[in-house]
Amino acid sequence: MSKPKVFEKPIGVKDYLPGAVAKLRHIERQVLACMQGWGYEQIMTPTMEYYDTVGVASSTSDQKLFKLLNNRGTTLVLRSDMTSPIARVVASLLKDADFPLRLSYHSNVFRAIEEEAGREAEFFQTGVELVGDSSAEADAEVVALAIASLKAAGVERFKIAIGHVGFLNGLFEETLTGREEAQEQLKACLLGRDYVGYREQLRKLALDEPVQRELEGILRLRGGQEICDQALQLSGNAKARESIGHLCEIWDVLKAYGVCEHVLIDLTMIGDFSYYTGMTFEGYAADLGFPVASGGRYDNLLSQFGRKAPATGFALKTTRILELLGNEADEAVQRTLIVYDATGRAEALAKAQELRGEGVKVVTERVNEESMEAYKAIRLRGVVEEPFTYKGIAYTGFDDFVLKGGSAT
Amino acid sequence: MSKPKVFEKPIGVKDYLPGAVAKLRHIERQVLACMQGWGYEQIMTPTMEYYDTVGVASSTSDQKLFKLLNNRGTTLVLRSDMTSPIARVVASLLKDADFPLRLSYHSNVFRAIEEEAGREAEFFQTGVELVGDSSAEADAEVVALAIASLKAAGVERFKIAIGHVGFLNGLFEETLTGREEAQEQLKACLLGRDYVGYREQLRKLALDEPVQRELEGILRLRGGQEICDQALQLSGNAKARESIGHLCEIWDVLKAYGVCEHVLIDLTMIGDFSYYTGMTFEGYAADLGFPVASGGRYDNLLSQFGRKAPATGFALKTTRILELLGNEADEAVQRTLIVYDATGRAEALAKAQELRGEGVKVVTERVNEESMEAYKAIRLRGVVEEPFTYKGIAYTGFDDFVLKGGSAT
Repeated sequence: MSKPKVFEKPIGVKDYLPGAVAKLRHIERQVLACMQGWGYEQIMTPTMEYYDTVGVASSTSDQKLFKLLNNRGTTLVLRSDMTSPIARVVASLLKDADFPLRLSYHSNVFRAIEEEAGREAEFFQTGVELVGDSSAEADAEVVALAIASLKAAGVERFKIAIGHVGFLNGLFEETLTGREEAQEQLKACLLGRDYVGYREQLRKLALDEPVQRELEGILRLRGGQEICDQALQLSGNAKARESIGHLCEIWDVLKAYGVCEHVLIDLTMIGDFSYYTGMTFEGYAADLGFPVASGGRYDNLLSQFGRKAPATGFALKTTRILELLGNEADEAVQRTLIVYDATGRAEALAKAQELRGEGVKVVTERVNEESMEAYKAIRLRGVVEEPFTYKGIAYTGFDDFVLKGGSAT
Repeated sequence: MSKPKVFEKPIGVKDYLPGAVAKLRHIERQVLACMQGWGYEQIMTPTMEYYDTVGVASSTSDQKLFKLLNNRGTTLVLRSDMTSPIARVVASLLKDADFPLRLSYHSNVFRAIEEEAGREAEFFQTGVELVGDSSAEADAEVVALAIASLKAAGVERFKIAIGHVGFLNGLFEETLTGREEAQEQLKACLLGRDYVGYREQLRKLALDEPVQRELEGILRLRGGQEICDQALQLSGNAKARESIGHLCEIWDVLKAYGVCEHVLIDLTMIGDFSYYTGMTFEGYAADLGFPVASGGRYDNLLSQFGRKAPATGFALKTTRILELLGNEADEAVQRTLIVYDATGRAEALAKAQELRGEGVKVVTERVNEESMEAYKAIRLRGVVEEPFTYKGIAYTGFDDFVLKGGSAT
């Protein structure tokens, strides 16, 4: 195997230069502040977790986990999401904390195989978990907060598609009783939004005409609250009907939040995490093919860490939002340049200190033989009025302390 | 090997609960803002780097690097510091950027073996790199900025000890010519601040009386600028004398910055990174046995990435500063609780939205049968005037929308 070149970084990971960092930090700040406004407080967990605990619980497939050994020979993973680590914390460090718990995070997460498809092996997520509340009210709260968070991040045009794991499970159990493989194939098509493949799978199953029509019919189950009525007509299965009832309630609460313009019920939606047990949702920005947010209810995950509790939450895909907003103009940094020589040093550095105390960003430079030419070019302009560039950096202010009290070259 | 228990996290890594996160975030914000005030802009690099590039250049010993394989079989490391990754970026993505470059970072870094000693395997550093300036002015700037950063972080009583790699190298070359092993042993003692061990090693070397005295004498070389004069008398070696001259110049600039009260020249100081080539320094907080900052000049690192350039920088040990400041009182979060039932829902959620728009932190809760008792206890207090606790969360405000327009319970 050839060695990587000295300047290379691994495939699938990124460097962020100051302009990008400023934007990413801005999104992070705005979103975390929004979440705090809803009572969610931030927690942080380690980058590495035990494979046997968080790794296994994470619902990220084994081949997508970055694994490493610690010096005792125990397998660790780089976290692939924040939901499982937070579940661990809720069951350990926070085991005596009352429910409901409202927690937020901003964190990098890792997926090993993604790099193959040109996707990122390390990316940022900003999200919340609402633990200890099983109500439709709680589900609606996280959906409404996801909407508020996307707005806080600067995403203007977007839709949240809400589905329910129980509806599809109930419908498939009813119509494809005992045929688990067929159920899994159909779900895989829906997860991949491959509706052509879904119809093809259905035909291959050689179902009775009415059943076939019923299962094809769910592809049209996308819209407002009226979709719930249509779905109730479609299935007599108790689990499916209960799920629809729960979605109906969520819609009612979202109406009270006044955010239904952003919401769409989509009963073909399957969350991308196997631990989801109820409502799931994804957020789509206009003109963007991939989700910028995803979330759902996971009522069985906490019990894997020894503290049974219902929970619901979501994560913004912050790195994608950064790409989405990346073309907006940079906010220019206002900097002042202070130039000095040995005679003006103390005065110059004191002036810099004074300006910094007032919030001005100041770069100081002692003029030496090398930089004298570049300096003279500025000096000639006197006190510079408009922005200028010196050694590749943009400045809006200039002050000099060269031969103060004498005459400058 | 026994499996880890479900609630366990790996040894040497930490969970940060909301109180600690708020403090860590506060330090991070204050320090990065301070650095920006000096013209340093933040960059971010990936958690994983190639072992053969950044891993090898990092000067972290092999056994302290966390290693893992990507799916092509190439060895990756979790970054052990930020200086080498930034050197890589300066030589690649920023290869056309003019010098000097002023870059800052706040980042987690990883050390594999530390966990053995109960030390952290993952911790935070906040630092800067000033690339492309070899002057004493540049060295003094990073020392002065380290002082400003420690103050910004909230550390009040601290000292910065400055040394120079060239002084000890020159002195040892002169007095222990060709005896590399002896030189390394003595340096190891100084690095570990083991002065007893240093004297013992000296005795074992059976040196001539004057040389022995000379090498013991450096242990007393700690103080203000007068130390430079004493050191000049101690060594005639050109390299040693040049180093002292450079330290003298740095001191002059620090005097102009007006920060010498925080500075101490300590010629026994050896930076903990093998890539240091000139001035090195460490920051010590009062009553704390370990450094809270460290830095130095590394003029040969950049050339390893294909862009030869002098550079100097430092990192605050942010996690340690957090521990140092950890006992200060939490700033209480001001939260308002809004309680509602089905009839008051729309009104309650609208009110919450309104308050959040004004910057108030609001938690909403629909009262159900379960929570009715807890709710009644608050309700009895009417509009709550003083702070109260509900389900483990502290609130300073309360509003209810239960049976609005009718009579409650």
